[in-house]
Amino acid sequence: MHKVKVALGTRTYDIKIEKGLFAEIGTHVRQLSLAEKAAVVTDANVDALYGSLLQEKLEQAGFAVRRIVMAPGEQSKTLATLGKVYGELAAFGLTRSDLVITFGGGVPGDLGGFAAATFLRGVDFVQIPTTLLAQIDSSVGGKVAIDLPEGKNLAGSFCQPRGVLIDPEMLQTLPKRYLHDGLAEAVKYGCIRSEKLFSRLEAVVDDEALLCGIEPIIEECCAIKARIVETDEFDTGERMLLNFGHTLGHAVEKCFNYEKYTHGEGVAIGMHMLTSRTEDRGLTEKGTARRLKSLLEKFELPTEAVLPGGEVLATVGMDKKKKAQEITLVVIEGIGRGRLHKIPCAALPEYIL
Amino acid sequence: MHKVKVALGTRTYDIKIEKGLFAEIGTHVRQLSLAEKAAVVTDANVDALYGSLLQEKLEQAGFAVRRIVMAPGEQSKTLATLGKVYGELAAFGLTRSDLVITFGGGVPGDLGGFAAATFLRGVDFVQIPTTLLAQIDSSVGGKVAIDLPEGKNLAGSFCQPRGVLIDPEMLQTLPKRYLHDGLAEAVKYGCIRSEKLFSRLEAVVDDEALLCGIEPIIEECCAIKARIVETDEFDTGERMLLNFGHTLGHAVEKCFNYEKYTHGEGVAIGMHMLTSRTEDRGLTEKGTARRLKSLLEKFELPTEAVLPGGEVLATVGMDKKKKAQEITLVVIEGIGRGRLHKIPCAALPEYIL
Repeated sequence: MHKVKVALGTRTYDIKIEKGLFAEIGTHVRQLSLAEKAAVVTDANVDALYGSLLQEKLEQAGFAVRRIVMAPGEQSKTLATLGKVYGELAAFGLTRSDLVITFGGGVPGDLGGFAAATFLRGVDFVQIPTTLLAQIDSSVGGKVAIDLPEGKNLAGSFCQPRGVLIDPEMLQTLPKRYLHDGLAEAVKYGCIRSEKLFSRLEAVVDDEALLCGIEPIIEECCAIKARIVETDEFDTGERMLLNFGHTLGHAVEKCFNYEKYTHGEGVAIGMHMLTSRTEDRGLTEKGTARRLKSLLEKFELPTEAVLPGGEVLATVGMDKKKKAQEITLVVIEGIGRGRLHKIPCAALPEYIL
Repeated sequence: MHKVKVALGTRTYDIKIEKGLFAEIGTHVRQLSLAEKAAVVTDANVDALYGSLLQEKLEQAGFAVRRIVMAPGEQSKTLATLGKVYGELAAFGLTRSDLVITFGGGVPGDLGGFAAATFLRGVDFVQIPTTLLAQIDSSVGGKVAIDLPEGKNLAGSFCQPRGVLIDPEMLQTLPKRYLHDGLAEAVKYGCIRSEKLFSRLEAVVDDEALLCGIEPIIEECCAIKARIVETDEFDTGERMLLNFGHTLGHAVEKCFNYEKYTHGEGVAIGMHMLTSRTEDRGLTEKGTARRLKSLLEKFELPTEAVLPGGEVLATVGMDKKKKAQEITLVVIEGIGRGRLHKIPCAALPEYIL
């Protein structure tokens, strides 16, 4: 069992990482909650694979269970789906002392977490992430949200889960594209904080070897995120480092209607395009963009996209990281060394187009 | 200037109460925020009376202003309206360092406050309540919410405003029914915490005299609420006292589709019906229900309603105060002495029907 503590005072919790943990999931959830009822927010793909097994395990642990199943994909992360989830929580008679369990990738995690943060003004929730992206990123740190037509994650809360339970065996059923999608975030952690992690990813020979040795990778990613979240829970400073590649990445996803690129693919493009520009401007060590591109390409991630400039700028202008007339970009001075870099909004095209 | 401090650590703020304060509203808001942009969430009634004047005053204080106007009434306090408000905030380009101003009664206050609490995961907001109900109750204490089809305030947050600015002169344009609506909450504060306030309300001769001497009444109500919120911000104990009359009151409002009774009227019915029952059961001093009824009737508030029993119980079963198989009622031992009283859910009909 690998364990990462997220130390946030009264909201402190553990991320447990263990191959095969899902077989004991009822016991793990029961250790975190005395609830009578557990509402599981998930998507149809995950539900088809693991939904009835999860229900059985939770019932064995004494929970009354209701599975709330949304359509898979970012298209579900809307206010309309949130309304449906609220309706099902109400119909289930969930009370303030009950529990929400988010089960799946980032979409059920973010939307289910936001539902938990706001239903009855807040009920406890536990994250059981099943994709690599969710296991190393979206399930950790308490950012929950839905998308608005104007952009991703524009409405949400900061609300920490009671715990995060990760079984890396579940990645065996994850389509290869989504495994690589998650690796983009692992590469990001390497870029901003750990050349050692970056080198470890460079040393991976294929997907099989990756999955075999994934536990310490997940643990290191979660630990990097936990340390950053501990210093800046509400995202007013250092936490912005986690957005390396994301400002442009979100715009890339949006410009292609969340259809052409996954989140990780958008981030891969965003990291590489920005780093090429900052290298040209002397902000980043020479050779960094090339090294980054080579690693991303090994994981079959895109590194460039032809973007409609006006639309990208309009989208970035709506980014949460924008403060009035200046914008904070995350740049890397070299692998493992991320820092915040404020620029006037007017200078933005030179960095991202 | 009357001032009530709500002491909540880093989220401490003042409630300022002064006749004629609205003439200087731009200056007061500017003291609370360095924002460039201010989005005003209001309803069509308030906007028609005061919207352009507020905009002018805010612009004079250097804010760029956008008024977001919803239809008046509880019917607007929905997820659909929230979505429209989010859309307008996004279109206005509001950033995390900007400001939301809620302007009106409880509906713009609760919905606008929830929008502020969640847009970009939270932007500052200031409450400018214009109804008596909002001035003494809903604008104070940081509970923000929307209704769901299943019941009132079922989705929301705890999120404190940066400040509350109250001009009692604005009550001059409030229809008489809504002045009395607010008085129901003033009577509630008297019931749970202050026989002195209750007696002061008993001494009021007519609406004109009431409005003339309203400042200290507003101040005392806000102070009672502030002291309770300070001890229990997240509503897990003593704060439930503020729900005296509300468990049944919410159900009354809902059973009549939020059309027949206002919130205060529902609360008036709830306080009186419950107190009649608790008096019969020996939990409340003899004569209390009669004294309460007499005060409520002076303010033309209803004290009884014929209710569809099954529907009321179903609605109360969905109440946020319900914890699994027991429910916490707020009862008064006498005027000024409220306390929490737990009962099994099965005993509920004896208390409220």
